Amino acid sequence: MSISVFEHPVLSGLFGDPAMARIFSARAQCDHMIATEAAFAAAMAEAGQIPADAAARICEALAVARIAPEDLAASTGRDGVVVPELVARLREGLDPRDQDFLHTGMTSQDVIDTSLALAIADLVACLTDRVAALQASLDGLADRFGPRPLIARTRMQAALPTTVATRIAAWHGPTQSWLKRLSAAALPLQLGGPIGIFMNDETGARVAALMADRLGLALPPRPWHTDRTPITGLGNLLADMSGALGKIGQDIALMAQQGIDEIALTAGGSSSAMAHKSNPVGAETLITLARFNATQISGLHHSLIHEQERSGAAWALEWMILPQMAAATGRGLALTIALIDTITRIGTPPQDRA
Amino acid sequence: MSISVFEHPVLSGLFGDPAMARIFSARAQCDHMIATEAAFAAAMAEAGQIPADAAARICEALAVARIAPEDLAASTGRDGVVVPELVARLREGLDPRDQDFLHTGMTSQDVIDTSLALAIADLVACLTDRVAALQASLDGLADRFGPRPLIARTRMQAALPTTVATRIAAWHGPTQSWLKRLSAAALPLQLGGPIGIFMNDETGARVAALMADRLGLALPPRPWHTDRTPITGLGNLLADMSGALGKIGQDIALMAQQGIDEIALTAGGSSSAMAHKSNPVGAETLITLARFNATQISGLHHSLIHEQERSGAAWALEWMILPQMAAATGRGLALTIALIDTITRIGTPPQDRA
Amino acid sequence: MSISVFEHPVLSGLFGDPAMARIFSARAQCDHMIATEAAFAAAMAEAGQIPADAAARICEALAVARIAPEDLAASTGRDGVVVPELVARLREGLDPRDQDFLHTGMTSQDVIDTSLALAIADLVACLTDRVAALQASLDGLADRFGPRPLIARTRMQAALPTTVATRIAAWHGPTQSWLKRLSAAALPLQLGGPIGIFMNDETGARVAALMADRLGLALPPRPWHTDRTPITGLGNLLADMSGALGKIGQDIALMAQQGIDEIALTAGGSSSAMAHKSNPVGAETLITLARFNATQISGLHHSLIHEQERSGAAWALEWMILPQMAAATGRGLALTIALIDTITRIGTPPQDRA
Amino acid sequence: MSISVFEHPVLSGLFGDPAMARIFSARAQCDHMIATEAAFAAAMAEAGQIPADAAARICEALAVARIAPEDLAASTGRDGVVVPELVARLREGLDPRDQDFLHTGMTSQDVIDTSLALAIADLVACLTDRVAALQASLDGLADRFGPRPLIARTRMQAALPTTVATRIAAWHGPTQSWLKRLSAAALPLQLGGPIGIFMNDETGARVAALMADRLGLALPPRPWHTDRTPITGLGNLLADMSGALGKIGQDIALMAQQGIDEIALTAGGSSSAMAHKSNPVGAETLITLARFNATQISGLHHSLIHEQERSGAAWALEWMILPQMAAATGRGLALTIALIDTITRIGTPPQDRA
Repeated sequence: MSISVFEHPVLSGLFGDPAMARIFSARAQCDHMIATEAAFAAAMAEAGQIPADAAARICEALAVARIAPEDLAASTGRDGVVVPELVARLREGLDPRDQDFLHTGMTSQDVIDTSLALAIADLVACLTDRVAALQASLDGLADRFGPRPLIARTRMQAALPTTVATRIAAWHGPTQSWLKRLSAAALPLQLGGPIGIFMNDETGARVAALMADRLGLALPPRPWHTDRTPITGLGNLLADMSGALGKIGQDIALMAQQGIDEIALTAGGSSSAMAHKSNPVGAETLITLARFNATQISGLHHSLIHEQERSGAAWALEWMILPQMAAATGRGLALTIALIDTITRIGTPPQDRA
Repeated sequence: MSISVFEHPVLSGLFGDPAMARIFSARAQCDHMIATEAAFAAAMAEAGQIPADAAARICEALAVARIAPEDLAASTGRDGVVVPELVARLREGLDPRDQDFLHTGMTSQDVIDTSLALAIADLVACLTDRVAALQASLDGLADRFGPRPLIARTRMQAALPTTVATRIAAWHGPTQSWLKRLSAAALPLQLGGPIGIFMNDETGARVAALMADRLGLALPPRPWHTDRTPITGLGNLLADMSGALGKIGQDIALMAQQGIDEIALTAGGSSSAMAHKSNPVGAETLITLARFNATQISGLHHSLIHEQERSGAAWALEWMILPQMAAATGRGLALTIALIDTITRIGTPPQDRA
Repeated sequence: MSISVFEHPVLSGLFGDPAMARIFSARAQCDHMIATEAAFAAAMAEAGQIPADAAARICEALAVARIAPEDLAASTGRDGVVVPELVARLREGLDPRDQDFLHTGMTSQDVIDTSLALAIADLVACLTDRVAALQASLDGLADRFGPRPLIARTRMQAALPTTVATRIAAWHGPTQSWLKRLSAAALPLQLGGPIGIFMNDETGARVAALMADRLGLALPPRPWHTDRTPITGLGNLLADMSGALGKIGQDIALMAQQGIDEIALTAGGSSSAMAHKSNPVGAETLITLARFNATQISGLHHSLIHEQERSGAAWALEWMILPQMAAATGRGLALTIALIDTITRIGTPPQDRA
Repeated sequence: MSISVFEHPVLSGLFGDPAMARIFSARAQCDHMIATEAAFAAAMAEAGQIPADAAARICEALAVARIAPEDLAASTGRDGVVVPELVARLREGLDPRDQDFLHTGMTSQDVIDTSLALAIADLVACLTDRVAALQASLDGLADRFGPRPLIARTRMQAALPTTVATRIAAWHGPTQSWLKRLSAAALPLQLGGPIGIFMNDETGARVAALMADRLGLALPPRPWHTDRTPITGLGNLLADMSGALGKIGQDIALMAQQGIDEIALTAGGSSSAMAHKSNPVGAETLITLARFNATQISGLHHSLIHEQERSGAAWALEWMILPQMAAATGRGLALTIALIDTITRIGTPPQDRA
């Protein structure tokens, strides 16, 4: 056991996903925060709020800034957020004239939420590729086996004869909205300043628009400091996706039962005690990941009760949950694609056909 | 204590909502199921699948059919669904020639899910009205008190001076997407037949389109027998809404503390032991409802793992949860509007201003 | 659909349980509250805190007091608790000299939590009987079918030959601690007064002991106004029980699959579309109830964050959840016993034996 | 952002706990698994089931076996469990005569669950020390500030005057059962063999008793392969503990509000935007950890639906959740002790006293 299965030296063989680890790495997170600070400075200059040359020097310095994430841990334990120390260290690397132009106007939440939005943009790109690959994989499976007979089962009882194509179509169905939904679930820029009113005047709105443009993020109608529905919306999509993959896993685990024999997989898991067994590990893991995300989504919704102008307690709960949900969904997609590739036969076995 | 607070003789004073009770009543549910059967017969006739006169007689008979919900309980305990007995009873009231034209082609899930969609259409209409009323209520509050000073608070600490308008804007913000989201969250027609393939051919697709049209429901791209994301999507919206109302409740409860005194309410709850107390019961209840829905949403996501062509277990879990979530959200909206009406003062009290 | 499946005119055929409805009825709740007030008055008199004759008159009057639960709904909506109005009405029925002796010293939470404890005592008695009946039922099943062969299955794959007795022993195992755990999970008396310090002095402790004795409740070491672990402990047991029943249901649903055929049930559910089907509705419902309770338990744990000397928000969340969990567990026990009675054959079918 | 806050280079400053990381490290896990294999071999020899000298050679070899956790990741991805590969590697280091005596009779679940029990024994020891330290810390706080006045607050409203001692007693109350509950929540030995019947005969029962004795674990009445209530019981205690700490955090966050001013802390968190702020970060984090565990407990209860003789899907869900819950509780205890140490004043400020 380790604390997180996603990053566990042993269990990451089952749950780990290099792309997810990279997207949510502390290194990437620091880079995103620095990019956020740079984009803010540049946008402030473009809007005439700080001198253009100061912003240029800031961006140049930040482009080569190197902060070791570990060095920020102690202060984060004290401050509850990484930003005060990060900004202090970044300012140390600036020309003294420019130090006050860095970050001033923003608040920690702007930097952290915007950095998260940058990570989620990478996540959306990665998941989008995988969804396309999954669809191709399901299409290929349907091409190979679609016309074969299969007994449809309702309430776990034999219902009526149909074809493998029907079952595959049920697996494919939910994926058809995912590409569109993924693109809509990307998080927007966060820019509210200390108490969430930065965008209330024309200048602030302009800075936000310029900054969103630089970072390639959507511009929200207003800051979402306390309106965390972008987070629950993303979580809902992630859980919808892992849930649909869990249905595939459940179906395959049921089809692989001896006596049912509706599917054959090239590769199953070994047993330490029973040499004859070949366990449908991938299928089971899809169920596990689905139930994990179905559990987690609840915590994101509790975080909606975000008191006053910023809730440290509700916000940090998101940090504990959202990356895990993303990792579970990302892993689930990769696992499903791999699992489908191992299918060598699917459909009612000849001897059971009427 | 009773089992359900929403329908409890005593606690419904706090949690009950006549409109919600009506929308989800067994009576309305039976009416919706009968309407579903009638619309199917009519659509089948229009598509040339059953004789037009048979469909006309069926619709006429169903229009006056009276089924006492209680009479369906025993069979539902046996069958797990109400439909077999309902159909049997409806057939008894038909001309023997027409009996086979009733329901044939559909399955229980088509009738129950479509009936739910009809209830949700009523729910969406009701919540839409309430959201508009809530927005008007918040606008009125901003008109009355917006310019007054208020200390913004972040992480439960005094941050910077702002105005009441800022706080109200944060309450108003999430509601601005609700009208659009409510309309998108309405459930579509369900029509898949026993194993979900009814709409696969041209005739089935035509029947579905005609039936959706008659019932005023959206036509889905395919049956959602096993793709339960319409349910999680609706649940996510309901929990987003109650969560945002919970934030309002939490803010008001915090503002009403002695020592903070940022709000005055005409009416608070009495204490059985302390005559001087006036408890912010409405505000607290909004928090309760929010945490209730944040808890429930998890169950809907577990129901996504919907095995094979129909899962009795996963489907029935939705029945246990979704109406409660709707009732909590509906009640929350009514309660918030009423609570805002009791605000007689809001903003930092004069003696605490710098 | 109705809001609560437990009390729904139609769905109560599947989810309803008359004993649970009775235990948690508003009528029983009012009776328990009145009994709590009477026991408090009597204990106060016995401890010399109020005149003995006043207490005697109070007890006599309360013994015949009739309050219609419905009459308390409006005030509960205002006060957030039923007690202020209940006490006011009870006082109206008393000799004016005695009115101040009623309730004075207690707080709403004392009355409501103690009344809940009385309901839970009834619940524990009912569940205890059912657990004993379930154990007898499983023993009978083992007597009838225990020696028959069964293929043990791990990770949903055939593992090794064993007997039906092994599977039944796995169903029986968890029940063996339930009788003891049920008795330990009963809720104790609640008596803290307005701010939880009633039992801090010798007199208060004596009143509490006398009152607990009269009501047949355990005496807690201190009030549990804000320490809600008695509630989570009870919830944990209820969810443990329904979870173990869900495992039985899942096993039976898997055994009943065509192709597996390890179990035959006399009675299954009818399908509205497929006359040949016999659905394992009872088994599926056990899974549903288990997942329902596994979802709900989370809300009880959120209610542990019970701020200051009393949290209206956290407390009311318990009211929404705990009775439903009890009802699900009670129904699950009854359903399991009934389901076992329908088993006419269990074990690997002869043709599948090696 | 990283995937797990407990092990994140930056956020571990807030959420990390070296003792928790050590207890659940992959290194410790491997050591525990090897110790389990050695204890099984020794117990089998002592019970006369394998030659004593073989067991002695096995124990000797295992005592110096070195397995790099990373080397087991790929096979774990394939097999779903680490044990087949671990056993294969351990056998490679044995005298060929002894290889079959290693592990034979056990199954993967025996090794993994018993190893988890060894980790939990360490966890229990660690948490026990911390609970004692917390109690001492609360006692010290009561000694320093107990007699000072404090306004009790119910439903977030001023109720009646009391003392700081009352509030501290409410914090202390729940901890008083924790030492006893921790000791009862330790996990027992797992020994069931491939299909859970190892302990059914006298020899198996004897081996289990000897093995439990060697490992210092409790001997369960029967294997708990499919009866996962030891896991939910432990999870319930962990969530009860973090919930009670969350209540302390919530109380302190409320007391620290300007306008309330009932507590002063030496150290608060800095703001990146508002130099005057001192955020009660520790108190907020306790709330976060409580809500995290209240969310997670649900997943453990879903895992009770553990089908047939072993559920890969349900079991792996425990791996994803339980270590995180332990880490949250361990961190919460350390954080609470540290937070109490920073309290320099507690009680109603002089100017607010009547």
